[in-house]
Amino acid sequence: MAHALALGRRGMGQCWPNPAVGCVIVKAGRVVGRGWTAPGGRPHAEPQALAQAGEAARGATAYVSLEPCSHHGQTPPCTQALITAGVARVVAAVPDTDPRVSGKGFAALRAAGIAVTTGVLAEEALRDHAGFFLRVAQGRPWVTLKLALTLDGRIATASGESRWITGPSARRAVHALRACHDAVMVGAGTARADDPQLTVRGFGERRQPVRVVVSRRIDLPLMSQLAQTARAVPVWLCHGPDTRAGLAQTWTGLGARLISCPVDAGRVDPVALLQALGREGLTRVFCEGGGQLAASLLSADLVDELHVFTAGLVLGAEGHPGVGAMGIPTLAAAPRLQLVDVVTEGSDIHHVWRRGEAA
Amino acid sequence: MAHALALGRRGMGQCWPNPAVGCVIVKAGRVVGRGWTAPGGRPHAEPQALAQAGEAARGATAYVSLEPCSHHGQTPPCTQALITAGVARVVAAVPDTDPRVSGKGFAALRAAGIAVTTGVLAEEALRDHAGFFLRVAQGRPWVTLKLALTLDGRIATASGESRWITGPSARRAVHALRACHDAVMVGAGTARADDPQLTVRGFGERRQPVRVVVSRRIDLPLMSQLAQTARAVPVWLCHGPDTRAGLAQTWTGLGARLISCPVDAGRVDPVALLQALGREGLTRVFCEGGGQLAASLLSADLVDELHVFTAGLVLGAEGHPGVGAMGIPTLAAAPRLQLVDVVTEGSDIHHVWRRGEAA
Repeated sequence: MAHALALGRRGMGQCWPNPAVGCVIVKAGRVVGRGWTAPGGRPHAEPQALAQAGEAARGATAYVSLEPCSHHGQTPPCTQALITAGVARVVAAVPDTDPRVSGKGFAALRAAGIAVTTGVLAEEALRDHAGFFLRVAQGRPWVTLKLALTLDGRIATASGESRWITGPSARRAVHALRACHDAVMVGAGTARADDPQLTVRGFGERRQPVRVVVSRRIDLPLMSQLAQTARAVPVWLCHGPDTRAGLAQTWTGLGARLISCPVDAGRVDPVALLQALGREGLTRVFCEGGGQLAASLLSADLVDELHVFTAGLVLGAEGHPGVGAMGIPTLAAAPRLQLVDVVTEGSDIHHVWRRGEAA
Repeated sequence: MAHALALGRRGMGQCWPNPAVGCVIVKAGRVVGRGWTAPGGRPHAEPQALAQAGEAARGATAYVSLEPCSHHGQTPPCTQALITAGVARVVAAVPDTDPRVSGKGFAALRAAGIAVTTGVLAEEALRDHAGFFLRVAQGRPWVTLKLALTLDGRIATASGESRWITGPSARRAVHALRACHDAVMVGAGTARADDPQLTVRGFGERRQPVRVVVSRRIDLPLMSQLAQTARAVPVWLCHGPDTRAGLAQTWTGLGARLISCPVDAGRVDPVALLQALGREGLTRVFCEGGGQLAASLLSADLVDELHVFTAGLVLGAEGHPGVGAMGIPTLAAAPRLQLVDVVTEGSDIHHVWRRGEAA
C-alpha cells in the first residue's frame, strides 16, 4: 500500500479534478502491475496496472490508494475492470467520499465475489487525497500557503527588493511544491512587484499548474510574463464585479480566463474565491503570497498547510511584512498552527505547519 | 577533553570575568580528579581537580579546556599547582589569549619538564571561551540575542499582549540560556511593557545573571519587579548622559548600579554600551529584546549568536515587530547569519544562527 500511495503521489497536481490514485497488483508476492492516475485524470490507475499485469492479474491482489470508482464517467468503471481481470482481492486505503462512488465501489467488488479490505494506511491516504475530499465535502480546494521570510518575517526591503531572500535549495523546494499542486496563486501586488512566471521549472516536461492571480480590478501590466504566456500555460484572473469591460476583454484576448468573485471589505472575498476555484475543478492550490492575500486566507481560516522558508537575514521593521494586516485583537484570537516538519534547505530552514486542532 | 569541556560549561555565566574552565586528571586510564571554575571565578578548575586526585596526580595527565594561568592573581598560578602535584603531561584545548598568560603557562609547564599538548578539540573550546576571548580582544562581551516570534515575526499584538507566544518548553529553554550567560539584557520598552524578573528559574539555587536594562532616561517604573528586587539580584541601568539627577539617585538607593553611556541618534550607542559592559567584566550577555534594542545591536553587527523561537501562530502586520527599524536600503546590505542548529521545543521551533562569514 505504501508503494501504491507513492505511485499515486506522482499524479498530484496533474490529474485534477480527479484524485491522484496509485495501484499495485501483486501475485504470489511479486509486483505484476503498477499504475497511477494519468495527467489529465485519465486513464485511472487501476486499468493501467491491470494492463501491465495482463493474465497475471487473475487471482492477484490489487492495492489501491482509494476505493475504485463504480460509475460510468468518461471511462468505464474501475470496479468492472478489476472484476473482468479476475482479481481475487482488493485492498484499498480509504473509501471514496464522492457520492457517485462512496461505498458503491466496494459493494460492486464484493458482489462479484472479490475479497475487499479497507483502512490500510488510511491516515496517509486521507492526507494525500485531502484536496480531493475537501472539494467533495466543502466545495473548495486544499490550500497550501508558502512564505519565504527573513528571520524577522519580512519578504522585501522597504523599496520592494525581494530577490533573493532564500537560497537556490529553498527555491527548488518551492518548485517541487508547485509541481504537486493543481494551481499556483498570488495576489495582484506580488504579480505586479515580482513579474513572476509561476511555472514549475527544473523538473522536466510536465503538465503545468494553473496560474491564478487574485486582482480585484485586474490592474496588472499587460507586458508581464503572465500576460504574455497566458496561451501557453493557463492564467486565471479572479476579480471583483467592478472591472472595466475593456480590460476584461483585453485579458481574455491574451488567453486568460476571468473568474468573477464577490468583494468583501474592498478585497476579493477569500471564501467565495476558493469556492469558485473548487467549482472550476481545482483540488490543491499553492498560494505564494503576497502579504495581503496571505493575511486574507489566514484570517478566514482557509490555510490548510503553511510552508515557511526562513532565511538567515534580517531586514528590520521597514521591510514588507510577509503577512499583512489581520486585525487580531488578542493572542487568543490569533490563528494557531501545529508544527508538522522542519528541515534545512541549504542555508535556510523549511518548516511546515498545519491548521491546529480545535483548542 | 570532551569531558573537561563539559565540566567547564558548568561554570558558564557563573564565573565572569574569569573564563569557565574544566579540568580532568587521568591516571592509567582512570579519572582521578575533576574540577571547573567555581562560581565567582575562584578557585580555578585545576587546583580543585588536583585536590580531588591527591597523590594520584603524580605522573598523571591533566586535560584542561584552556591554557593554565601562570600569573599570581588573587590565587597562585595553576601552572605551579600542576608542577607541584607532579603531573607528567598537560593536554590543553587552546592557549589563553589573555596577555598575562598567552603561552607563558605552557612555557612554565615545559620548563618544569611536563609534556604539553595543545589544540585538542580547539574548535569547541574556542566556542566555549568565545566571550572571554572577545572581551580580551575587543573589550566587549559575546552577545546572544533571543527572539520569541510568531510565524510572521511578531512579538506582541497591536495592544501589546505578548504572554505567551511560545510554549512552556521554549520558555524553559530560555531560562537555560539565561543560566549560561553573565547577564540578561533588555531595552526600556520591554522592561516597561512586560515588567520582567529576568532571573533564572527552575534550575535550583544558583548565582543569578546580572540584569541589564538599557534606558536612555531611566524612565522605568519604580514599582517594577526589577526595581523592587535590585538588592537581591544586581540590576545595572545603562543610560544616556541626560538623566535627571534625582532619578539616578532614587535608582541607586534601590540598589541598582548606573552606567553612563554616550547616545547616538537618540539611543544609547550599542558599541559604547557593550564596551562599558566589557569593562565591568561581563563576557557573555543574553539580550531578550525588545525590537528596538535588537535592531540596534543587529545594525551595529554586534549579535554573535541569534536564538529564534518560532511559535505556530500568526498576528499580522499590526503586531509589534520582533526587530525594529534598521534603515536597510537593499538586500545586500542586510545582516546575514548562518544556521547553526534547529530543534523543536514543544510546539515551537528553536533555531540558532551565528554571524555569517564575510561573503
